[in-house]
Amino acid sequence: MLAKPALILIDAQMAFVEWERAGQRRNNSDAVDNMARLLDAFRRGGLAIFHIRHASTEKDSALRPERSGYQPILQTRERAGEPVLVKHVNSAFIGTDLEMRLREAGHQALVIAGITTNHCVETTTRMAGNLGFEAQLVRDACYTFDRVGFDGRSESAEAIHNMTLSNLNGEFAAIVTTDTVIAAVADNIAA
Amino acid sequence: MLAKPALILIDAQMAFVEWERAGQRRNNSDAVDNMARLLDAFRRGGLAIFHIRHASTEKDSALRPERSGYQPILQTRERAGEPVLVKHVNSAFIGTDLEMRLREAGHQALVIAGITTNHCVETTTRMAGNLGFEAQLVRDACYTFDRVGFDGRSESAEAIHNMTLSNLNGEFAAIVTTDTVIAAVADNIAA
Repeated sequence: MLAKPALILIDAQMAFVEWERAGQRRNNSDAVDNMARLLDAFRRGGLAIFHIRHASTEKDSALRPERSGYQPILQTRERAGEPVLVKHVNSAFIGTDLEMRLREAGHQALVIAGITTNHCVETTTRMAGNLGFEAQLVRDACYTFDRVGFDGRSESAEAIHNMTLSNLNGEFAAIVTTDTVIAAVADNIAA
Repeated sequence: MLAKPALILIDAQMAFVEWERAGQRRNNSDAVDNMARLLDAFRRGGLAIFHIRHASTEKDSALRPERSGYQPILQTRERAGEPVLVKHVNSAFIGTDLEMRLREAGHQALVIAGITTNHCVETTTRMAGNLGFEAQLVRDACYTFDRVGFDGRSESAEAIHNMTLSNLNGEFAAIVTTDTVIAAVADNIAA
């Protein structure tokens, strides 16, 4: 069903766990479990996985490589042989060889998950669609945080997350769930 | 104040006027007037302007080149000598030579306006920021339409527009107004 799929797992790093422990409110409490389930399904199917890691160059970022926040979330950590691509901006396609690797290996369908929905996941998904990949955004395997908007009003993580899904839906990506992807991967293996 | 600015005017094309005439509700009723004011200020200052035009390859799109919707909105039409770059996806940086032209001419500050806020304007602005440009999104010189979200709920043009501004603010771009840009351009000329 999926054309040589690759799982693109974006910025599943401890900085976001640390933010949550520090009291920042987020949505999708099962998202990390779902990322781990996607990894498991792709590993069992022998399918491609690309781990994307954000190395911030900003002075105060928790995602600077020397800080604890840079480390991967244990449940989603790469296994030996799985590529880890380091990026410095939101899009996993800018300043990396991700596009070249995907094209050389013939991956057309990209299953995208990770953190945060509206920044790095959304930017990568917009570019994936515009670059001609068949992007699938796994809506229960990504999350974001409550935030104060540009006009000073508070926005809930759920409202931010849902607006990303609405903006991407059909225009850049198909919006899917972890269960749907796992079933498609199982069909792929069986076929 | 601005480092050799360029105005990037995105998809100011008749398809969106036709949608409105057909009853689609939008926000920012002054947006086209504001685009025209930005064009006027950049022309008076002898500053660079790039017109981006969307040529859809989708069968039923009003933005196909042979349709009336492809034509520029009269008030924002290019003048002789102003480059028009044709794109086929949301981002003005994909499948065009926009980045190369900007770098070769030394434009670091990009003033971005056009239609629609959450699709082509937002995608181009995310990429502009991630490519290292100093992006400024002119919030009263872009607009979008009411839409049904991925979950079937209606979203107002204002809510969609504002979420784009909140998502881009600080992370990808500065959110500015037409008046602010025109004042900065005037300062630039005077300096």
